[in-house]
Amino acid sequence: MNLAPLPAIMLEPLVRAALLEDLGRAGDLTTDAIVPKDLRATTVLSARQTGVVAGLDLAILAFRLIDERIESTPVCPDCSEVGQGQTIALVSGPARAILTAERTALNFLSHLSGIATATASIVNAIRDHKAKIVCTRKTTPGLRAVEKYAVRAGSGANHRFGLDDAILIKDNHIAMAGGIRPAIERTRASVGHLVKIEVEVDTLAQLEEALALAPDAVLLDNMSLDELRQAVSMVAGRAITEASGRIAAATAPAIAATGVDLISIGWLTHSAPILDIGLDYRDT
Amino acid sequence: MNLAPLPAIMLEPLVRAALLEDLGRAGDLTTDAIVPKDLRATTVLSARQTGVVAGLDLAILAFRLIDERIESTPVCPDCSEVGQGQTIALVSGPARAILTAERTALNFLSHLSGIATATASIVNAIRDHKAKIVCTRKTTPGLRAVEKYAVRAGSGANHRFGLDDAILIKDNHIAMAGGIRPAIERTRASVGHLVKIEVEVDTLAQLEEALALAPDAVLLDNMSLDELRQAVSMVAGRAITEASGRIAAATAPAIAATGVDLISIGWLTHSAPILDIGLDYRDT
Amino acid sequence: MNLAPLPAIMLEPLVRAALLEDLGRAGDLTTDAIVPKDLRATTVLSARQTGVVAGLDLAILAFRLIDERIESTPVCPDCSEVGQGQTIALVSGPARAILTAERTALNFLSHLSGIATATASIVNAIRDHKAKIVCTRKTTPGLRAVEKYAVRAGSGANHRFGLDDAILIKDNHIAMAGGIRPAIERTRASVGHLVKIEVEVDTLAQLEEALALAPDAVLLDNMSLDELRQAVSMVAGRAITEASGRIAAATAPAIAATGVDLISIGWLTHSAPILDIGLDYRDT
Amino acid sequence: MNLAPLPAIMLEPLVRAALLEDLGRAGDLTTDAIVPKDLRATTVLSARQTGVVAGLDLAILAFRLIDERIESTPVCPDCSEVGQGQTIALVSGPARAILTAERTALNFLSHLSGIATATASIVNAIRDHKAKIVCTRKTTPGLRAVEKYAVRAGSGANHRFGLDDAILIKDNHIAMAGGIRPAIERTRASVGHLVKIEVEVDTLAQLEEALALAPDAVLLDNMSLDELRQAVSMVAGRAITEASGRIAAATAPAIAATGVDLISIGWLTHSAPILDIGLDYRDT
Amino acid sequence: MNLAPLPAIMLEPLVRAALLEDLGRAGDLTTDAIVPKDLRATTVLSARQTGVVAGLDLAILAFRLIDERIESTPVCPDCSEVGQGQTIALVSGPARAILTAERTALNFLSHLSGIATATASIVNAIRDHKAKIVCTRKTTPGLRAVEKYAVRAGSGANHRFGLDDAILIKDNHIAMAGGIRPAIERTRASVGHLVKIEVEVDTLAQLEEALALAPDAVLLDNMSLDELRQAVSMVAGRAITEASGRIAAATAPAIAATGVDLISIGWLTHSAPILDIGLDYRDT
Amino acid sequence: MNLAPLPAIMLEPLVRAALLEDLGRAGDLTTDAIVPKDLRATTVLSARQTGVVAGLDLAILAFRLIDERIESTPVCPDCSEVGQGQTIALVSGPARAILTAERTALNFLSHLSGIATATASIVNAIRDHKAKIVCTRKTTPGLRAVEKYAVRAGSGANHRFGLDDAILIKDNHIAMAGGIRPAIERTRASVGHLVKIEVEVDTLAQLEEALALAPDAVLLDNMSLDELRQAVSMVAGRAITEASGRIAAATAPAIAATGVDLISIGWLTHSAPILDIGLDYRDT
Repeated sequence: MNLAPLPAIMLEPLVRAALLEDLGRAGDLTTDAIVPKDLRATTVLSARQTGVVAGLDLAILAFRLIDERIESTPVCPDCSEVGQGQTIALVSGPARAILTAERTALNFLSHLSGIATATASIVNAIRDHKAKIVCTRKTTPGLRAVEKYAVRAGSGANHRFGLDDAILIKDNHIAMAGGIRPAIERTRASVGHLVKIEVEVDTLAQLEEALALAPDAVLLDNMSLDELRQAVSMVAGRAITEASGRIAAATAPAIAATGVDLISIGWLTHSAPILDIGLDYRDT
Repeated sequence: MNLAPLPAIMLEPLVRAALLEDLGRAGDLTTDAIVPKDLRATTVLSARQTGVVAGLDLAILAFRLIDERIESTPVCPDCSEVGQGQTIALVSGPARAILTAERTALNFLSHLSGIATATASIVNAIRDHKAKIVCTRKTTPGLRAVEKYAVRAGSGANHRFGLDDAILIKDNHIAMAGGIRPAIERTRASVGHLVKIEVEVDTLAQLEEALALAPDAVLLDNMSLDELRQAVSMVAGRAITEASGRIAAATAPAIAATGVDLISIGWLTHSAPILDIGLDYRDT
Repeated sequence: MNLAPLPAIMLEPLVRAALLEDLGRAGDLTTDAIVPKDLRATTVLSARQTGVVAGLDLAILAFRLIDERIESTPVCPDCSEVGQGQTIALVSGPARAILTAERTALNFLSHLSGIATATASIVNAIRDHKAKIVCTRKTTPGLRAVEKYAVRAGSGANHRFGLDDAILIKDNHIAMAGGIRPAIERTRASVGHLVKIEVEVDTLAQLEEALALAPDAVLLDNMSLDELRQAVSMVAGRAITEASGRIAAATAPAIAATGVDLISIGWLTHSAPILDIGLDYRDT
Repeated sequence: MNLAPLPAIMLEPLVRAALLEDLGRAGDLTTDAIVPKDLRATTVLSARQTGVVAGLDLAILAFRLIDERIESTPVCPDCSEVGQGQTIALVSGPARAILTAERTALNFLSHLSGIATATASIVNAIRDHKAKIVCTRKTTPGLRAVEKYAVRAGSGANHRFGLDDAILIKDNHIAMAGGIRPAIERTRASVGHLVKIEVEVDTLAQLEEALALAPDAVLLDNMSLDELRQAVSMVAGRAITEASGRIAAATAPAIAATGVDLISIGWLTHSAPILDIGLDYRDT
Repeated sequence: MNLAPLPAIMLEPLVRAALLEDLGRAGDLTTDAIVPKDLRATTVLSARQTGVVAGLDLAILAFRLIDERIESTPVCPDCSEVGQGQTIALVSGPARAILTAERTALNFLSHLSGIATATASIVNAIRDHKAKIVCTRKTTPGLRAVEKYAVRAGSGANHRFGLDDAILIKDNHIAMAGGIRPAIERTRASVGHLVKIEVEVDTLAQLEEALALAPDAVLLDNMSLDELRQAVSMVAGRAITEASGRIAAATAPAIAATGVDLISIGWLTHSAPILDIGLDYRDT
Repeated sequence: MNLAPLPAIMLEPLVRAALLEDLGRAGDLTTDAIVPKDLRATTVLSARQTGVVAGLDLAILAFRLIDERIESTPVCPDCSEVGQGQTIALVSGPARAILTAERTALNFLSHLSGIATATASIVNAIRDHKAKIVCTRKTTPGLRAVEKYAVRAGSGANHRFGLDDAILIKDNHIAMAGGIRPAIERTRASVGHLVKIEVEVDTLAQLEEALALAPDAVLLDNMSLDELRQAVSMVAGRAITEASGRIAAATAPAIAATGVDLISIGWLTHSAPILDIGLDYRDT
């Protein structure tokens, strides 16, 4: 797997804000009261469930931003599949600082690993088909960049990152434009040469109308398997085909079998459960 | 239901950041190209599933921060139970601005309503018992204040908001302190008169040791129903009792029946699926 | 001209920061000392040179952020061509506040109008050809979104907005990849379905190699007019062609005549001189 | 040349914001796809034109903020005159990170070096006169501190940094105050003992009126050479004299010859073209 | 003394903002002009008065954020009592940077040491009684976390940190609720299990009414010594007792002698004078 | 009194941060639980002590930022002298919001009024002399602009606002420069024409040395009354004279009588006690 890490400069503001959110105005009352100031500890980040790791850089950054003397040794980096009980990383240093950063580190790591795990599971379910699994803009506010990254860590692909990097013409746009034709034509007249155009269609009639205007991609929304098959055949390679509409692990293989190029699933980023990961103390 | 709204000054930075995350550097390419500049629209936020609403203020703020001429009329405010297809609010104003803010508004509203819905469902499942459902610090980074609010909207209660507003002595603290007694004693010596102390125990033996030191609350972690019943009886009202450990809707009633005061569930904030909510265009 | 304004939420942080940069720690010493507190004034933003307006929203916002009682009436909105002495907008309200915001308002307006004017002038010079004028990522740090907007106000088009919204393979990438082929192939394997791929070539031989891999666009860097003509003919519509390399108003027409689709000019955003605009006081 | 560097704490927010502006939500798609993860590179920042360097600290910071393992070796530090092709600095480290930071580093360096070059050129043109070249508040929003620094790097001097560090009474102030006398008197009554007062005059009659009130400096706006000579003679050392009004390299020497102390030129910061600087890859 | 330091991540934004506030747009004009660039210096932070140190971490951070080569050696860390002339820390490194950071470092250190000193002096005055000295929410805007820390450094304790971490029912609340009973009952119904409830009473009659509802603490506001004694006796250990109302060092011992548990003093954080601390240069 | 208010854009970030500091993550628990949602209230800001008002704009902004429906009516604006019990402003609107903002509003108002009161008291003590009272850079971190404003509200004047708006050569600079002469000469060579130069001297010998170099002002540090008189006579109007060194209300008149132009007092901003101001509820 060749997943490029996000630069730390993109992660740091997120981790810093999360730590301050947890520290509040008085810091870690419990740890400061109980744990001896000079105690050093070695701890282990380990999976409590089987899944795919994502977000280890954010977890490590959480520890380091609390105390730069904490050293982390990744064992299973992002994209790794881990089994229950398996060690993801070792974290050593001042014991107080490790406990203070623990929850923030785990909140990032378990959330993003949850997304990667969900993605990988569906990717695996359709592994015999050419279709790719893609995520949507239905992401948690503030976390889009890292959630999209987690989808990549789970071997999924990314759709648009925002309103500004591609054209996606949806039903409301079509209704307000007065039809598919004016909608596509207006976008073609206004966007840059590196911007692609995708249009959402609900019926095969709409698809036909759209294809006449040569969009780069068509989003086939809430179509039956039969309709999807016909759509793929109508498109005949002239545009990228994307199936969409509350697709889950169970229904993905049949949809992939229709021959679509992409299956987009909002659930990956808005509803995937976390991967349960814990931090355990080993005396040193 | 008497749920106090969070002041807008706490919500605005979150909504502002989420909108900018979606707008990127070029704004809404699709809408700007297609939708006529002066078109006004009335749209409807409506539930696609049965659930409990939370976060409507954030959604309304998203629209207003894009264009202050947008007017929103809440129909089902936070805490309301809504059925499939039911209108949550009407949103009227410049059509472009409504579409540009749509996804951000929905991302907040569906995420927080998902948490409220999950909470309400478990609260309802144990309605014949005195136990309260509480959330944890396992929240999405950056969203703790609003996720805890969503739990309240679902008739749940809140545990600590951070590391600094209460003492919660966990297993790692006890291990590093060398026992429950020094752990509790050290916290009692160091914290203010308005700070309560809760201690996590895994066994009845630990519980006995803890009770001798009169903590305000005990967290009974991963105990069997039998152990929970005995624990409640041992405590005999001298401390608040909280059951914890991967509790779900199915297992909550039996746990509530043991007589504990609180059941804490991390899943509410880290893994509850969204409530599906959409925005539909009505011509004006 | 159908130029969509950028949402105020994108402009406000820039204008706010610029005002605070000018106000420093003591505010406007001169105006506060001299101008009577209750004096109201009507002032005129007017062009001192012929050009194209861009950035009027930012100027108006500067006044309003200092005092919300200031009312501005645009006379020549963005994209308008203005002659020397022509009124761009009227600005009325508390005299002190107008003078305090004046320089910030003018700094935005004259900088962005300078870019629009430079763009319009080159666009006009090649008006008999199909080629579009596009800008680059050589923008002033912090101002990319508004500078790209100013290019659009001058009837130019935008290239990439950043490192993340399109693939542009440049000479250093090719050198590090060990050739054009691996470079293109690696990008194709890794990017989303809405991301286009453009590759920079310096020679016709490189162009031939690139075309075999069907990029969406080719950047023809520093080629002679002859080479450009041959390149256009070789491409034969299979990719978008972009000419690049220190092109100015004087040389643009000949380049446009070669038949390229795009001419990219960094100078538009990094070196265009301002359009001289002033604010004059009219007694009220 | 004894130019004090600005503390990194002042530069870092600018560089950080510029990098994030370029990275967007997905980072450097092209480089991450193409360049091998472990490739290390040595690259050269070199001048494509003759000029004066300014802003090298910001460029170096851009590289270091992307990856702290990048090492930069300045060859021609700020204030250095460089010829075409001359090496300004060597930049070595992880190849991906260097390419990702390249454009941000160059945007700062070429913009500020452009200002320094323009300044130095005019300073040189009047080197036989005592007059100093000074910049104005007509700076790029957000960049005032570094643009003023670049003027110093080009051997120019700085005028006011903002509205709050000196009094500059301009035509609108005089009009609103009802004359030069009340304007000067009101400022003298209100400002601190370390604040100097400068007044703009358009005619010799105004100058006479101003001199009676002993300002620290007089700004002689848009005067002819003859008027300037008379003004200098009238002032006779009682105040600093500053000539102003669309002065360029060609007209500066004659103005300097009138004996004025200062020549202020807004063009230095609002319209000076960049100094063309590139980054070239050398295999390692 | 076992005072836990606040994590640097909580201090850094404060120190960074304070340095930038002092540096303005041009940096340290005086030092940059006068002090040789390469001069290294050893300087001494020393007390000009007897008192208790607090805030040394912030002072050290101020130096390090200006230049990471500055090395500080604490001699009397936070909580130490220092006499006039005593060395608090040694600060060595580039001379310019030390002088540039000096005022910011001292402003934090002398302000917080002033609070610690004031606190310690009153704590000492009542050392023969069990009462603790606590601070209030009457803190300097922006500095609450560090001012509360300084109170701890002076051996005082902290009251609430904000509106959200405990219930404190004050006279206005009681008036608006229509009595003490509804006020207490409403809070008990709404807050989490880890939140304590304190109620302010002005008379013994109010105290009696309050005690019937078993609050965790009672704030006895502006009571005479006689009333306080009676109040303590009425409470008889059923709640924590806190005396309040313009209490100073002179009056504290008599109040402590009444047997109250806590004495709260707003003056500690809103009006305590600084501890005079200076930085002296020693040649190296 | 002609005190110009600071623009709201400068105050708003301070007030916003202070409100968020107090609201924490859960908002105002007490008020939300107790005060009826729709209750409207009229409240009164009134002085509990005699003093001078400063900061009313910040207090009013605190209320408005919590709820824009709150209306405030100033009765005694900034610079007003108020007696004990006197109404400063009326504040009406939603009762909850008023109580939630109360402490933040009072913290700003009482702190800044304390500074204004202290300043006015010393200004009054020396009213028969020409000397002005000035503050220093010994301000509370983050609050310099508003504290300097409060000094003006108390009829004091301001010294430097930061390191960058004037030259102040202090003992450490002189020591590092190797004498007063090189120190002054180096600054004169490097700073702009609107920057004044002040030099600190401890002895009359140093003063003589300094005067030979014509500084704009001399700071006479810790001199006896006798020395001050001689210094004033030596200076003979050639420079502004400033007396400094732990000057208080009691010692100021004698110092003023020596004929110095300025008396600078750090105590005004670092140690002046607050002016006690409260908010009282009146039923509506």
